[in-house]
Amino acid sequence: MPLVVQKFGGTSVGTVERIKNVAKKVKKAVEEGNKVVVVSSAMAGETDRLLGLTREISSRPDPREQDMVVSTGEQVAIGLLALALKEIGIDAVSLTGWQVPIYTDTAYTKARIKRIDTHRIMSELERGKVVIVAGFQGVNDYGDITTLGRGGSDTTAVALAAALKADVCEIYTDVTGVFTADPRIVENARKIPVISYEEMMEMASLGSKVMQIRSVEFAAKYGVKIHVKSSFIDEDGTWIVEENEEMERVAVRGISHELKESKITVVKVPDKPGIAAKLFKALGDNNIVVDMIVQNVSHEGYTDISFTVNKVDADFAEEIAREVAQEVGASGVERNDRIAKISVVGLGMKTHAGTAGKMFEVLYREGINIYAISTSEIKISCLIDEKYAELAVRALHEAFIENQETIVVD
Amino acid sequence: MPLVVQKFGGTSVGTVERIKNVAKKVKKAVEEGNKVVVVSSAMAGETDRLLGLTREISSRPDPREQDMVVSTGEQVAIGLLALALKEIGIDAVSLTGWQVPIYTDTAYTKARIKRIDTHRIMSELERGKVVIVAGFQGVNDYGDITTLGRGGSDTTAVALAAALKADVCEIYTDVTGVFTADPRIVENARKIPVISYEEMMEMASLGSKVMQIRSVEFAAKYGVKIHVKSSFIDEDGTWIVEENEEMERVAVRGISHELKESKITVVKVPDKPGIAAKLFKALGDNNIVVDMIVQNVSHEGYTDISFTVNKVDADFAEEIAREVAQEVGASGVERNDRIAKISVVGLGMKTHAGTAGKMFEVLYREGINIYAISTSEIKISCLIDEKYAELAVRALHEAFIENQETIVVD
Repeated sequence: MPLVVQKFGGTSVGTVERIKNVAKKVKKAVEEGNKVVVVSSAMAGETDRLLGLTREISSRPDPREQDMVVSTGEQVAIGLLALALKEIGIDAVSLTGWQVPIYTDTAYTKARIKRIDTHRIMSELERGKVVIVAGFQGVNDYGDITTLGRGGSDTTAVALAAALKADVCEIYTDVTGVFTADPRIVENARKIPVISYEEMMEMASLGSKVMQIRSVEFAAKYGVKIHVKSSFIDEDGTWIVEENEEMERVAVRGISHELKESKITVVKVPDKPGIAAKLFKALGDNNIVVDMIVQNVSHEGYTDISFTVNKVDADFAEEIAREVAQEVGASGVERNDRIAKISVVGLGMKTHAGTAGKMFEVLYREGINIYAISTSEIKISCLIDEKYAELAVRALHEAFIENQETIVVD
Repeated sequence: MPLVVQKFGGTSVGTVERIKNVAKKVKKAVEEGNKVVVVSSAMAGETDRLLGLTREISSRPDPREQDMVVSTGEQVAIGLLALALKEIGIDAVSLTGWQVPIYTDTAYTKARIKRIDTHRIMSELERGKVVIVAGFQGVNDYGDITTLGRGGSDTTAVALAAALKADVCEIYTDVTGVFTADPRIVENARKIPVISYEEMMEMASLGSKVMQIRSVEFAAKYGVKIHVKSSFIDEDGTWIVEENEEMERVAVRGISHELKESKITVVKVPDKPGIAAKLFKALGDNNIVVDMIVQNVSHEGYTDISFTVNKVDADFAEEIAREVAQEVGASGVERNDRIAKISVVGLGMKTHAGTAGKMFEVLYREGINIYAISTSEIKISCLIDEKYAELAVRALHEAFIENQETIVVD
C-alpha cells in the first residue's frame, strides 16, 4: 500500500471552508488506496497574530516562550482538520510535534530536526487512520516545544516522508508548481514538469518562493520525491527529483531574480595581503551572511572590494565596512540598495558550453551593465541595476527558454 | 521559604494589559519572599472562540480532537505571562499540562487528575524561577491532551497546591470573595472572611459561581488552604479552610439561590414497592442527575413523585418519566420550569436547633409556598416559585445574616 505525505500551507487551511476542502482532497487520496500522513501549517494569519501578541509584551520575546505561544497555531489547525475528516467518514488522529515525537536541537525559533520516532505514526496508520501532524514544530531534549522557523512545515513534511520512506511528498501551495520565471513578469513563463533537487535549491536561494531551500536540501539528502502542486486546482504540478541524464538536455531550466540585496563597496583599498580576510571575518563574526564578492585587479597598488548582503543587514554591514576601511586606509565606502541579482539555472550547463557568454550577450544587447558575476556549476548570476530587472528576466527567458534548442530523443 | 500557588481566571488575563498587571502581582509575591507557581486560564473569550471553530466543522466534535484545539488557549496565556514576567525582571518558565506532567484519566473534555509529577516544577523553583502552569489541561496514558472541563483551572491550582504542599492556594477572580448572598440581589450582602470547605461546597453546588465544587472537594480532601480574592482590588478576600469550633458559632453562613432546575411530577402513581426505583434507575441509566426528590404519603393507594433536574436535561427526563408513568399506570406527568431553589448554609446548624423552622416561618410570612424541602447536616433547601426567588433571598438574608445573634468570644 503506497504511503503519501501531503503538506498543506496556511492559505490552504486559512478558513473552516478551506479546511473542509483539504479534508476532501485527503479523502480522495485514501480512497485511491494510499496510506496518508498530512502535515498542516497554521491557519493563514494565525502565526502573525500570535507573534503580534508576544511583541505587544516584549520587543525581544524570549525564544522559548515565543515558541510556546506560536506553536499553538498548528495545533489548532490539525485538530480542526481531524474533525473535518471524521465528519466525512475518514478516521483521523492529530499529533503535535512532541506527540510524534519530532526531536530537534534546542535552537528555539529556528530549530533543526534531529530524529523522528515513527512508532506512533506507524501504529495509527496500521489502525487505518489518517495521521495529521503539526508542521513547523518539534520537541527538544528538555521536553520543551521548539519551532523550525518560517516555512518549517515544508521541512516537517520532507523529514516525515524520509523517516516513513513515503512514496511521495506532496506540497500543496497556492501556485500550480515551479515556473521557468516569475509569471507576473514573464507572460510566457511555463510550469516546469520535472526539476532536480540542485536546480530547485538554486531557484529557492535565488528568490523562487515555492519551497524553503532547507527542505529541498533535506529531500535531496534522503532522496524524497517531491510533488509541488496547487491546493485549489487539480492538475499535475512540478516534480522535484534526483537529476538524471534526460535533464541535462536542457541548458537552462529557469530564470530567477532577487531584489532583496544591497551592494557595498570599499573603495581604493591598499592591495596588501590580509585586508579582504579582515573585512569578511569582521562581517562573519557579526553573523552577516555575504552573498556575492568581487575584487577587481589592482591598479597602482589599490583595488575596490564589493560584496552583497541582505537588505536587512545592510546598515550594520556598512558600519562594519566603514570601520575596516578606516583601519586599513581605504578611501571610503559606497552603498547601492537599488540592485537586482538575475540568474539562469540549469543542470545542462555542465555539458552545454557557452551559457555564460550567451547570458552576457543578451544583457549587453539590452544595454544592461553588469556590476558583478558569480557562478556555480549549474547557475550564473549577474548583478545589475534594479530598474532593468524585469527587462533582463524577459530577455533571458526569451533567449534561453522560449527559443532554446533541445535534443529530443524518443 | 513559603510556597504559594496563584490562579488567575480568564478575565484576569483577558488582554495584554491585564496580563502585565498579573505579572506585577506575581512579582510582588516573589519580592515578599515566596516561591510562586502560577496557574492561568485562557484569555477570556478564547475557549469559546476555539470551541466555535470546532462546532463550525462538526455539530458533535470528537472529544479528543476538541481537547487538542481547546487546550491551546491556556498555552498561549502561559507563554505570554512568562514573557510579561521576564519583561519586568522576574525569571519565569511556562509549562503545559503534559510538560508538568499532570496525568489524568482518558475522559476527554471532562478528565479527572490522577497524579502530578512535581519534579520539573520543583527543579525550576530551585533555580529561582516562577513556574507558570496551564490550567484546565493534562495528559493521559496514551500521551494525548485532555481537558478537565469548564472551571478546571481551579482544580489544576488546588491539585498543584496539594502536590507541592503549598502554604496557600490563591484564587484570583473578578469578585472580591464569597458573599453571604448574591450582592446583585441583596444590598446588604457581606463578604465572608472565613468559610469551611463543606459550607463552600454547598454554596458552590447551590449556584455560587465563585469556585467549582470539584476543586473545593479536592482542597478539602488534601487540606489545601484557599484564599479567594480579586484580581483588580488589593484586599483580603475569603479564606476557605477546614472547619473549626469558632465557625459553629454562626448558624447560617450564607443564602444561595439556583434557577437552573426544572421540577417534574409523576402524578397518581400506584403506591406499590419498586416503582420509585424503576423511575430513578431509568433516569440514572440515561446519565440524568436528579437533585431533589419528594414522595408524599399515600392517599387511597396512590402517591405523587416529584423530582428536580437541571433544565438542560428536562426534556429528556420528562420523556423518560412519561414512559415509566405509562408502564406503571400513573395518571400523568407534570412539569414546571419556573421554579427556584433557595438554600441556607452553615456549619452552625449542627449545633443550633430551629434553623429549619425559622426558614419556613420567614417564607410563610412572605406568603411563599414551599414545593419541596431537602436537607443536609449543614444546609436546608426549599423549592419555590421562581418569581419569589429574590424576595425569599432578601428576607432570609435579613433574618439569618443581618439580625443573627453570634456569641463573640475573645
